[in-house]
Amino acid sequence: MRADERRTAEGILFTDQYQLSMAQLYFRQGLHERPAQFDHFFRRYPDYGLHGAGYCISAGLAWLVEWMREAHFRAEDLAHLRAQRTRTGEQLFADDFLAYLQQTGGFESLSLFAIPEGRVVHPHVPLSMVRGPLAMAQILETALLNQLNYQTLIATKAARIREVSHGALVLEFGLRRGQDRGANAGTRAALIGGADFTSNVGLSSTLGLPPKGTHAHALVQVFLALGQSELDAFRAYAEVYPDDCLLLVDTVNTLESGVPNAIRVFEELRAKGHHPVGIRLDSGDLAYLAIQSALLLDRAGFPDTTIVLSSDLDELVIWQIQTQITQEAPRYGADAATILRRLVYGVGTRLVTSHGEGALGGVYKLVAMHDGTAWQPAIKLADTPEKLTNPGLKAAWRLYDARGFATADLLTLADETPSQAERLSLRHPNDYARHRTLEHAALSGMEPLLVEVLHEGQLVHELPPLAAIRAQRDADVDRLDAGVRRIVNPHIYHVSLSQQLWDLKQTLLAQLGG
Amino acid sequence: MRADERRTAEGILFTDQYQLSMAQLYFRQGLHERPAQFDHFFRRYPDYGLHGAGYCISAGLAWLVEWMREAHFRAEDLAHLRAQRTRTGEQLFADDFLAYLQQTGGFESLSLFAIPEGRVVHPHVPLSMVRGPLAMAQILETALLNQLNYQTLIATKAARIREVSHGALVLEFGLRRGQDRGANAGTRAALIGGADFTSNVGLSSTLGLPPKGTHAHALVQVFLALGQSELDAFRAYAEVYPDDCLLLVDTVNTLESGVPNAIRVFEELRAKGHHPVGIRLDSGDLAYLAIQSALLLDRAGFPDTTIVLSSDLDELVIWQIQTQITQEAPRYGADAATILRRLVYGVGTRLVTSHGEGALGGVYKLVAMHDGTAWQPAIKLADTPEKLTNPGLKAAWRLYDARGFATADLLTLADETPSQAERLSLRHPNDYARHRTLEHAALSGMEPLLVEVLHEGQLVHELPPLAAIRAQRDADVDRLDAGVRRIVNPHIYHVSLSQQLWDLKQTLLAQLGG
Repeated sequence: MRADERRTAEGILFTDQYQLSMAQLYFRQGLHERPAQFDHFFRRYPDYGLHGAGYCISAGLAWLVEWMREAHFRAEDLAHLRAQRTRTGEQLFADDFLAYLQQTGGFESLSLFAIPEGRVVHPHVPLSMVRGPLAMAQILETALLNQLNYQTLIATKAARIREVSHGALVLEFGLRRGQDRGANAGTRAALIGGADFTSNVGLSSTLGLPPKGTHAHALVQVFLALGQSELDAFRAYAEVYPDDCLLLVDTVNTLESGVPNAIRVFEELRAKGHHPVGIRLDSGDLAYLAIQSALLLDRAGFPDTTIVLSSDLDELVIWQIQTQITQEAPRYGADAATILRRLVYGVGTRLVTSHGEGALGGVYKLVAMHDGTAWQPAIKLADTPEKLTNPGLKAAWRLYDARGFATADLLTLADETPSQAERLSLRHPNDYARHRTLEHAALSGMEPLLVEVLHEGQLVHELPPLAAIRAQRDADVDRLDAGVRRIVNPHIYHVSLSQQLWDLKQTLLAQLGG
Repeated sequence: MRADERRTAEGILFTDQYQLSMAQLYFRQGLHERPAQFDHFFRRYPDYGLHGAGYCISAGLAWLVEWMREAHFRAEDLAHLRAQRTRTGEQLFADDFLAYLQQTGGFESLSLFAIPEGRVVHPHVPLSMVRGPLAMAQILETALLNQLNYQTLIATKAARIREVSHGALVLEFGLRRGQDRGANAGTRAALIGGADFTSNVGLSSTLGLPPKGTHAHALVQVFLALGQSELDAFRAYAEVYPDDCLLLVDTVNTLESGVPNAIRVFEELRAKGHHPVGIRLDSGDLAYLAIQSALLLDRAGFPDTTIVLSSDLDELVIWQIQTQITQEAPRYGADAATILRRLVYGVGTRLVTSHGEGALGGVYKLVAMHDGTAWQPAIKLADTPEKLTNPGLKAAWRLYDARGFATADLLTLADETPSQAERLSLRHPNDYARHRTLEHAALSGMEPLLVEVLHEGQLVHELPPLAAIRAQRDADVDRLDAGVRRIVNPHIYHVSLSQQLWDLKQTLLAQLGG
């Protein structure tokens, strides 16, 4: 794509046609400046086919905010819209509507409330809320969903991989398998959710993190093609990177050639006073090869070297490798725990594509319209109760039990003050029969989840750096019940409605005959 | 991401760290300018879980070429590299290497050979080949894989959806569910592979295609929240878009409210001399609702209106809907074929994420190195025969049988002239026992598949517009056997090696002890 085309395709026209069709209709009806509120939320956790998530990690907000502050209707954008025709050949978007868009500029009129990045999040709880003039809030939908859904999806997958890695380093390697430049968003979200480092040079540089990576099979192939050997390739690597020597050992034959050659080079390095870093395994039975490689490295006096594993890893594959090592290592006289501690996981394709569930089904639904006098709640009817929306201006709270663990997320109407109530009534979002009462005194704490990020286009919340986002993630995950953290068949975390919100929902449903 | 960060993350540092580590090693060894050739190919068709593709459609080339011509080492990029440190705190990339990168600029030294966009492509046949100085050819790997793999993946999924749509219009709606701005690449690839139009305003505008879309549930919700009705919303829509009136009918209740209200508005439009376009169904039992809606529209005298279906469609879901309509329509006295002809398919999430297989496993492997005197073939060893590479400088040919159908793709050494041979020997890529002989006289034609696109950085091949790419796609798909086009359990298309290439491969394997 040429640079001018990119500006068109990635600017304010990064939206769906129907948003603009509706915006013009609102304009014709005099509704375009009427305040509206849309809530963005997902209805269920990612389900990866045979296993599903018990929580998600929010991500994408900083990039959305930066996009919102940059995107505006340029003359070229308006020219593209002006060129569109109806079926009868007339101009589809009229000049007065286009003049309105030009005058409006961009999203400066909108307020954005959101759950900060790195937080644990759950279905039905708004990840973000957009409030402001109906037309522009409508046009924003596509870009908001695009940016928050994908990064949250990947941060969630990365958190699962981190969960099974038990403190081992996780490296993100997916750049080549993402969707064009969108792969950078995947890298960022992976770093938020659970990866420690990435191979992605550009993105990592913008975050001030050192990118990670040593060499590929190609290096060994080059030497072989020129009549030299794997050992020559390894020696050349050690010569250039004597203190960062991590060798890929499976180009020829892992145990017969790769590891012995690596050990020879490590010995040469040691003799010169350097500390070899380790090896990488990228094919074959990784668990078996890790044990055998560890034994060879131990015997050669390199028990502190790292073993990096890569090749279509994900949370289940890592778990299986760990289980196999635990079971199999003793048979070879090796200590499984020691081997597991030296492993590093390189995760590519299955992280950046969220293998098994390639999209988070986050939606953006109108929940209130201002009628000129007051806010009127809006609801989306549906045949299935799970698809009903929760109406009105709302707040979301997280409740912590006596142990300090998160026990429920509670949606209330915006003007409720649950933090001052002695007793909280928690209703299941859709099931009349399921509700419980909590004594406030039994809670150790309660906090609102959303913060105002943009107030009428102005940034009013500091967007934290990666380190702070990660600290938030760790704090939130630590306060989850172990059952919710399970990677297979997790315990269901409670998301509840307050009695008042429940009542409003039922009233609206009755009115609309739902 | 800020604009300056974007330039870093999307420019020449859109690569993996190990490419740069290897490049510096080649530089130290004096190998960096040595001519090398890498082949890019995939090893198997996408497998969507319970069904798999029988062919792929190539896409992504034009954007890759534009990226290669733009990307270069800027001062900021070099500063990021200069800032990297070894484990002992020294500068990781030395100044002489960085000076070399700066002087080299970008990919101007590389030649790129590729199969043009829109062509049917198969495993093991190089989609692209890169020839030129080793260091820069190595650095290109990540971006090339990223751009060609994803677009080819999506063009392939779109071709499958087109295959089951039997001439019905296919609309791409996936922008909100793609990976950040990478969704634009998905839109483009969908339009190459099989979608007729897209809802993506910006990208569609750059291609000169009208974007498609009418309204969402939000429009009806706005009217309901303000105390008005679905009918009021539809009337407002018809007033603004009298000749483009396509109404979403499932916000309240499809058959009780949506379709009757749409019909009322259509009657009002007709009375004013306009032609209503149709309705869209976005939830529920789409096949049943399509039949019932068609009956209602027919009875009201609107047999020519369109019925757009959306909601997690893919090739299997569409096929199931068609089958159900075919079986169920007669029970209601409706003609199934007539209903099927008025359907339009809106496909979003499952197209842009290639549901079931979110990545094409295309790889980029060294196949030859120049030793200063001559090209030396390179091979990648592997435990599994399917992972072996095909060595040397090669050409790829497509062979057409007497009916004019593609019967096999043939890989030969670059200096072979199979088009002049009387008899062709076709070897299975890995299985010694499988080979056949073809008489040239039995073929109706034979063509080389790759063209030189960049010659030492200069564009030497015209990159065709979308319409020409689509015409190429149609021509190629038309020349496929029906069995290869099946969406479930397709017939295996033959990809073969020439006897000379087979012999070279065996010789190298024997030499390397593989």
